[in-house]
Amino acid sequence: MLYFVGLGLFSEDDISYKGFKALQSVDCIYAEFYTAKLMGGNIDNLIDKLDVPFITLKREDVEDCNVIINEAMTKDIAFVTAGDSLMATTHTELYVEAVNKGIETRIIHGSSIFSAAPGLAGLQAYKFGKTTTVPFPDENFFPHSPYDAIKLNSSIGLHTLVLLDIQAHKDRYMTINEAIDYLRKVESERGEHVFDDDCIVIGIAQAGSDHPIVKGGRVADVADFDFGDPLHCMIVPGDLHFLEAEALVTLADVDEDLLKDFL
Amino acid sequence: MLYFVGLGLFSEDDISYKGFKALQSVDCIYAEFYTAKLMGGNIDNLIDKLDVPFITLKREDVEDCNVIINEAMTKDIAFVTAGDSLMATTHTELYVEAVNKGIETRIIHGSSIFSAAPGLAGLQAYKFGKTTTVPFPDENFFPHSPYDAIKLNSSIGLHTLVLLDIQAHKDRYMTINEAIDYLRKVESERGEHVFDDDCIVIGIAQAGSDHPIVKGGRVADVADFDFGDPLHCMIVPGDLHFLEAEALVTLADVDEDLLKDFL
Repeated sequence: MLYFVGLGLFSEDDISYKGFKALQSVDCIYAEFYTAKLMGGNIDNLIDKLDVPFITLKREDVEDCNVIINEAMTKDIAFVTAGDSLMATTHTELYVEAVNKGIETRIIHGSSIFSAAPGLAGLQAYKFGKTTTVPFPDENFFPHSPYDAIKLNSSIGLHTLVLLDIQAHKDRYMTINEAIDYLRKVESERGEHVFDDDCIVIGIAQAGSDHPIVKGGRVADVADFDFGDPLHCMIVPGDLHFLEAEALVTLADVDEDLLKDFL
Repeated sequence: MLYFVGLGLFSEDDISYKGFKALQSVDCIYAEFYTAKLMGGNIDNLIDKLDVPFITLKREDVEDCNVIINEAMTKDIAFVTAGDSLMATTHTELYVEAVNKGIETRIIHGSSIFSAAPGLAGLQAYKFGKTTTVPFPDENFFPHSPYDAIKLNSSIGLHTLVLLDIQAHKDRYMTINEAIDYLRKVESERGEHVFDDDCIVIGIAQAGSDHPIVKGGRVADVADFDFGDPLHCMIVPGDLHFLEAEALVTLADVDEDLLKDFL
């Protein structure tokens, strides 16, 4: 049996009862914390409570999923991730491979930024378009894809959830400020008014914690706001229902004047 | 203090530890089960364990949120829902009102169909466009909006998550079969080839349970498939990465020939 358990958004207390019971029952737990990571609490508290072998995988270990598949042929194994399970391509590949090999599987879901971010900002989840991720750029890598996603969604009135790159092995988590810099640089190259200084953007940090930071406003104003600890993400709103606009004023401290077209 | 606690997808065991601890600590729990509902397990097991007054609200009670707001001014109150918290407009309004009244709030997230459905089908969550809901039609109510959402998303290569109407007070939950009938009827009126018999659709039932049903294929073939108990939802896939196409073959039993353009 192979369990896929999503640990949820923030700390070791975000696991569900169902997930905890599954982890208690298995012979070994493999954890993948490079595509997403629990930033709050202490995962060791969970590991101590479980008293089950707990192995944190490296990227290359998951991409070569044979070890997990082979073990799951004869033992009860759990594959755990932060957020919901099956959100990364490598997780899906492991799931498909397990099913193809005839291994019994259970999917135990966890809370995810895909629904949490809209909720925290007071925006309707069904009005989001394509999601995008801003990567850490380097000399030969500066894709415009996040800009294109915002452009596409905005052109049809949809909100954009903008996730920010994680390089957990380097303890490096992109900040909202870095992501804004990135998108402003694309704007300066493209000049299509997708991410001008006057555009509205909502930054969200520490989603799932007791005190998430939600702050919106003009790009130029949010650019220097201190959102504190990771993980960070952003929303670029599209057309707003007046209840969404009212919510942004209250929940994200957006200046009413900026939203007067919607209120 | 007002806690918003998402109970997660399916049964009383989907609540997180954090959510359970919050519910144990409050003076009273208000539950809203008409926009979404836990279909598995038995919520009474949770209520018994908690030993805290537990009141299930009617629709009109939430829309008039004064009772909850007034109580939360002086007591610790929890507002619980199936799925993630803050997914319905009325929940957001309650949250905004609480913040405006200076009530301290905590948002405790739960697993949601927004991330669960993509994962179960092996599709990438970031490639979904606008979400839509198929409503129960009546004589004077037959909106084309679900058809329009699929048309819009498909035109730009995105997948569509199609949620199905819930009338919990009548114990009435739309099936995938009913939703397909609805969309075929729109297709016959509009004739824009958005939901032809040869289009591919993925039905998902009992997400979050130990044995979710995931079955895809041509509209004409899925139309008569028995998906069993509610809740049901659907995905209309857009452009598929070959790994997504492979996943649909394995996880949703889609005929390889139907996906040969992507494989």
